[in-house]
Amino acid sequence: MARGRFITFEGGEGTGKSTQIARLAEALRGRGLSVVQTREPGGSPGAEALRALLVNGEAGRWTPTAEALLMYAARDDHLNQVIRPALERGDWVLCDRFSDSTRAYQGAGGKVDATFIEALDMAVVGADRPDLTLIFDLEPQAGLERAKARAGGEDRFESKGEGFHRRLREGFLKIAEAEPDRCRIIDAGGSVDAVGSAVWEALRERWPGELGDG
Amino acid sequence: MARGRFITFEGGEGTGKSTQIARLAEALRGRGLSVVQTREPGGSPGAEALRALLVNGEAGRWTPTAEALLMYAARDDHLNQVIRPALERGDWVLCDRFSDSTRAYQGAGGKVDATFIEALDMAVVGADRPDLTLIFDLEPQAGLERAKARAGGEDRFESKGEGFHRRLREGFLKIAEAEPDRCRIIDAGGSVDAVGSAVWEALRERWPGELGDG
Repeated sequence: MARGRFITFEGGEGTGKSTQIARLAEALRGRGLSVVQTREPGGSPGAEALRALLVNGEAGRWTPTAEALLMYAARDDHLNQVIRPALERGDWVLCDRFSDSTRAYQGAGGKVDATFIEALDMAVVGADRPDLTLIFDLEPQAGLERAKARAGGEDRFESKGEGFHRRLREGFLKIAEAEPDRCRIIDAGGSVDAVGSAVWEALRERWPGELGDG
Repeated sequence: MARGRFITFEGGEGTGKSTQIARLAEALRGRGLSVVQTREPGGSPGAEALRALLVNGEAGRWTPTAEALLMYAARDDHLNQVIRPALERGDWVLCDRFSDSTRAYQGAGGKVDATFIEALDMAVVGADRPDLTLIFDLEPQAGLERAKARAGGEDRFESKGEGFHRRLREGFLKIAEAEPDRCRIIDAGGSVDAVGSAVWEALRERWPGELGDG
């Protein structure tokens, strides 16, 4: 059995990641592929319990260092319970946020030392880095307006202020620059169809000849 | 205002730490000192929420790596909310378990890499290491029998098996050997009075002339 594919979707608030994950999952399933849709923080019962502690409450409830530790504890559970078993079965795993969100939110945004985050990543993720990461890029103000318009009270990170969200965007763009083989920047400002086409094109480039002509 | 004193109590299950913390707190208060009694994992609202996830449920609920991350996230909260403010006020802080429990339970017991635990400790505890650590030493079987006899269902670590608890004891003794200035081994096999005298003696040795003759 060939190992599955691991694709992560990254970017700030309200960049349309979850809409595009659902759309891509449908397209892949339409080609007869097994797809697991999941998200972070969360994705497994233990990690979802940690998500509840992370995304609710006051912005200063945890320090950025504690956030990074909780994110990686949740990631360890999610990898062991869901992602690794799916990849071993040969599934396509589409994950809404992963390590790059910790690098951007707690690293670039929260000023946690980058070397420390890489030590966490090595201990928890190790060799199971994503095969492809799509970084959804959008002007922070536009994203926050979209995020506010949707339902649900998980707004702890949204409430962190403008400087934070500007550092966040720059952090994601720097990750894409540093790892061009793994990362593709997706312009998230277009229509759902336009963004969907860009996502599909990124997959075809990463795995040429494997997905047909979309 | 002089900085307070930070004393941690370490050791396996059922070694009598909490009885001795209560007794020492009373003795110090009797000398007019301000004392904060606290515990880990926990000691602050955020950390107590993490404690509930850590000490309940099946032994394999979290990997040792995830446990270490959750312990240090809780420790970050506890330090910032409770321990650092108390030390700045000049209080004596008596803490039931701290970093050495992560070194022994997740490191020696759970086989998490020691270098990784020290990176966590540097990021979270930094310079705020305990001034004195009392390591309560007891044959694991005797401690587990004492722990079983007491009420409360927080038994996730107790259920980890004999090899784990043997590595745990060895782990604590190695810490004491490696840091003789900070650590004192307390023979926890004696009567409450005998152990109490050993605890008091350890404090008098650490801060000569400061506590009178007990």
